[in-house]
Amino acid sequence: MMTDLPLDQVRTLLAVVDEGTFDAAAAALHVTPSAISQRVKALEQRTGRVLLLRTKPVRPTESGEVLVRLARQVARLEHDAQAELGLSGEGEPTRVSVAVNADSLATWFLQVLTRVPEEFRLCFELRREDEDHTAALLREGTVMAAVTSSPDPVPGCSVRSLGRMRYLAVAAPKFAARHLGGPVARTLTEVPVVVFDRRDDFQDGFVRGLTRGRAGASALRHYVPTSEGFVEAVAAGLGWGLVPEPQADPLLGDGRLVGIAPGRRVDVPLYWQQWKLDSPALVQVAETVTATAAEALRP
Amino acid sequence: MMTDLPLDQVRTLLAVVDEGTFDAAAAALHVTPSAISQRVKALEQRTGRVLLLRTKPVRPTESGEVLVRLARQVARLEHDAQAELGLSGEGEPTRVSVAVNADSLATWFLQVLTRVPEEFRLCFELRREDEDHTAALLREGTVMAAVTSSPDPVPGCSVRSLGRMRYLAVAAPKFAARHLGGPVARTLTEVPVVVFDRRDDFQDGFVRGLTRGRAGASALRHYVPTSEGFVEAVAAGLGWGLVPEPQADPLLGDGRLVGIAPGRRVDVPLYWQQWKLDSPALVQVAETVTATAAEALRP
Repeated sequence: MMTDLPLDQVRTLLAVVDEGTFDAAAAALHVTPSAISQRVKALEQRTGRVLLLRTKPVRPTESGEVLVRLARQVARLEHDAQAELGLSGEGEPTRVSVAVNADSLATWFLQVLTRVPEEFRLCFELRREDEDHTAALLREGTVMAAVTSSPDPVPGCSVRSLGRMRYLAVAAPKFAARHLGGPVARTLTEVPVVVFDRRDDFQDGFVRGLTRGRAGASALRHYVPTSEGFVEAVAAGLGWGLVPEPQADPLLGDGRLVGIAPGRRVDVPLYWQQWKLDSPALVQVAETVTATAAEALRP
Repeated sequence: MMTDLPLDQVRTLLAVVDEGTFDAAAAALHVTPSAISQRVKALEQRTGRVLLLRTKPVRPTESGEVLVRLARQVARLEHDAQAELGLSGEGEPTRVSVAVNADSLATWFLQVLTRVPEEFRLCFELRREDEDHTAALLREGTVMAAVTSSPDPVPGCSVRSLGRMRYLAVAAPKFAARHLGGPVARTLTEVPVVVFDRRDDFQDGFVRGLTRGRAGASALRHYVPTSEGFVEAVAAGLGWGLVPEPQADPLLGDGRLVGIAPGRRVDVPLYWQQWKLDSPALVQVAETVTATAAEALRP
């Protein structure tokens, strides 16, 4: 039962994770390091789990992550209650931490920041993260929400659909003229391609689809790990790539890019995952995100 | 003596680090996991050091990093020699991995990719990294070069100066009109500020300079962790920020940004660090980087 957990010990666990060491947590909480150590041990005995890996900096175990998230959620509820009671000081804005995938951050997400009404006094902490890392950040409560392409809810989180981001296979006209004369499925396995990073399997998957699984994209690949840089590299003729429709459209319009696989596209559904928590700030952000996504993404 | 190191064992160490586990390295090298384990142990006995942390994935120790870099450098030299002898296959481009700080990647660095002569058949692998991480990537040889603001050479690397990136303190006109009536040093400690991420101390340092060390920037801070998003957030009026001159200039020109601390600026010297290695590809890249930086940066 959650109500059985001694919250001062849970808060101590959070301080250790946030500060990185027992000594730093002790300094932050104005107690001795041995008091910190005793509280963490007591919490580990009570839960019957190892909660911290004693590395430098310390890391929560999976069980530890659950309690760290609990501590952050409790802190958030306390903050909301104080704000409602008019007890929070002028200097204490409400912090909203959100993990956002790179393409959303580069296209539609920043509008959210300007659309949330000012009276909420929100300060955003955005993190640009890929899928794998996003789940871990939600689990340990480092972020309270995320824009992600994974519909699988992280434990303790709710999920809602935001719409689909469409990707188009494009290249610079001079690149297409030089490299893409023949059947596109065959040539894409041989010509230069731009890829986001080592974990980006998007272009390879597209070519596997075209070749019915026989081959991925070319070994001639440039890795360009920013969304804006990726588009710029494709427009500069370094390779072809799958570019989000909002970034591709203006460049297709003025002739700096051409479509290279007409009729082929990839739609990526996006989701909003957030703590199940009745925080007015988080509710307001979720509503603004949903409304902004509805305008920017395909239904 | 380097010549005493059994290079097959060093290559095995590299395979374990790259593949992440002994089993995966065994599969990649077509030997048994116990053969992998024996080679790594033999190398550890020979060097008298622990070379790998047996985590999942495994991580090289500091001593292990030295040997992993050696293995990568040997592989690079082998590749160059094969290319010179006409032995490398058509499908094997030369990969050049470079860590670049976010602002350089967003402003001048991508031009380098289009300026390297095509006959070198280079494929770039860019990594967007902050200073701390860059040094580790160079040390363990994950990247062979880096654009960094640190003049301290990583062991095994040479350093050359690239010029200075100038940063200007700017804000949206409506933000300046609303928040910045009074003395700038005092108001900047209280009004919203845009910050790159938790490790970004740049805006705080600027305000400490203005207030002669008495205070950092405001607690009202938005974290926006992409270079392009940072500028966009400042131009949208979310806060003031220090913006690279190449990004600020067009927006100052069309009135979307205004300078908020006239006469104050921050110049950040940038450096090129690279493996001390006589590779024609790396020499060509270094020359192109130096020439491009000379045009884009201040001397």
